Amino acid sequence: MKPVIVVHGGAGRIFKEREEGSRAGVVRAALRGYGILKRGGSALDAVEEAVRSMEDDPHFNAGEVEMDAIIMDGKTLDSGAVSAVKCIANPIKLARLVMEKTKHMLLTDRGAHLFAQTMGIPETPGEKLITERSRERWKKNLDYATDYLGTVGAVAIDSEGNVACATSTGGLSNKLIGRVGDTACIGSGGYADNHSGAASTTGHGESIMKVVLARLILYHMEQGLSPEMAADTALDYMKTRVGGLGGVIVVNNSGEWAARFSTKQMSWATVKDDQLHYGIYAGERHTKSVDEALTLENTTTK
Amino acid sequence: MKPVIVVHGGAGRIFKEREEGSRAGVVRAALRGYGILKRGGSALDAVEEAVRSMEDDPHFNAGEVEMDAIIMDGKTLDSGAVSAVKCIANPIKLARLVMEKTKHMLLTDRGAHLFAQTMGIPETPGEKLITERSRERWKKNLDYATDYLGTVGAVAIDSEGNVACATSTGGLSNKLIGRVGDTACIGSGGYADNHSGAASTTGHGESIMKVVLARLILYHMEQGLSPEMAADTALDYMKTRVGGLGGVIVVNNSGEWAARFSTKQMSWATVKDDQLHYGIYAGERHTKSVDEALTLENTTTK
Repeated sequence: MKPVIVVHGGAGRIFKEREEGSRAGVVRAALRGYGILKRGGSALDAVEEAVRSMEDDPHFNAGEVEMDAIIMDGKTLDSGAVSAVKCIANPIKLARLVMEKTKHMLLTDRGAHLFAQTMGIPETPGEKLITERSRERWKKNLDYATDYLGTVGAVAIDSEGNVACATSTGGLSNKLIGRVGDTACIGSGGYADNHSGAASTTGHGESIMKVVLARLILYHMEQGLSPEMAADTALDYMKTRVGGLGGVIVVNNSGEWAARFSTKQMSWATVKDDQLHYGIYAGERHTKSVDEALTLENTTTK
Repeated sequence: MKPVIVVHGGAGRIFKEREEGSRAGVVRAALRGYGILKRGGSALDAVEEAVRSMEDDPHFNAGEVEMDAIIMDGKTLDSGAVSAVKCIANPIKLARLVMEKTKHMLLTDRGAHLFAQTMGIPETPGEKLITERSRERWKKNLDYATDYLGTVGAVAIDSEGNVACATSTGGLSNKLIGRVGDTACIGSGGYADNHSGAASTTGHGESIMKVVLARLILYHMEQGLSPEMAADTALDYMKTRVGGLGGVIVVNNSGEWAARFSTKQMSWATVKDDQLHYGIYAGERHTKSVDEALTLENTTTK
């Protein structure tokens, strides 16, 4: 099996001045995840690494005030998730520990923090995790009701044919305390099953939950639809049935992939056959070889 | 449309001395829900009433230490859920308020309690909510790993063809703080969609989440399976794929119903066409007219 990774940096409206940073961020995440896959690493390790890369990137404010994350292994259907965690640098890492070290699947709030302490995950002062952009948002008290840029995600298939997904979000600003959103909810924020494929979602959380979006996409693939058709059918259904917009990345168990959205924009990137593709607007698709992209990446980050 | 209600009082192993109480409890809940439907009430009101009846019944220890609940409206796909709430007499009522009074779908722990206070829901001292049986369980420190009797649920279709589901649980004893289980997770603990039907689940929570059990059953019905076939197919899949046992109640949008389980027992009851059916063991099915059952019910409770 040729490995494939697809990542997203959130769907919504991306301001002009942030476009380049978003493109660079998803490209970097996709290259890192692909590096793991090329060295024979697992899909699970690849999606975790890709999401961590974006959690650490101030262009995506995953890593905001209250954070949710989920990771799922398509081989066993095991998953781990955390919700309403604060002051943790990489919620996706904590989600993976929930999967591997507990018999539960979702820990929230105080329980998630107690677990983090038990696992020796250090707490980072909250201030550090609030990115510049997030600070601006709070200052201006803007209405971001149609902006889901705090979410990042990844799906992958590895050389053994195992699929995995990971999704992480800073959640909504101005939400009620203790709200568990779509990201942490299995089937909504993501789903992975070796029998069909994997999906990670972003968009209007309550709409995503109403239609259990990631699982819905996999059902369409089980019925024979391609990742692209499955994604479009599910996004269209979410729009018409419950009026919600969003975006998804999908890979199936043959290594076909899709990055689709009903919002105006979604930053995404994928690597397959040593070719990188990425974009932000509908119809936008840039292509580079991985070698070229890595050279550029090394030049930029120096 | 002729109204139908189906309820369950949990799947697992029901001790001999508790069988009669369990049968009586599900019958009472089904009759109460059906009463609402017969007076032209909504499926949503009927499932809430049926679940409240079982939450108040010491035979089912829904109403234990930490409680989760979910309710879903098949017309709009709106749902509300709470997780890790303590000292609230009827979590299902709080779940309905989350659905109707917030823009969120799932509130946990401290957030759920703050919301309950805002809504004027009184807190009941914890002791009162711990039933005798639950107390015994704690005392004996029994291993209830294959006993899911703390969960109750209901599904219904009303005279307008709207479906709804509700599920409520006392959760596992000896679980990690802040664990959100299957009950509160949309698609796992329950799902309702007028386009196909409604399902409420009980059983091994982590397995139910892995296969997103309630949503899975509805997919099978969308593919043309009867409620019984859909339930059996999904339960069989859960057993073979992830090794989990459980039980489900299902109604489809034609008013066909099923109560199926892969555990040894599940207490269940249903009313359709003014006929009550109920049982606990596989193959057990008693039938009475609603009039007869109501007369008996009034005699017993006097």
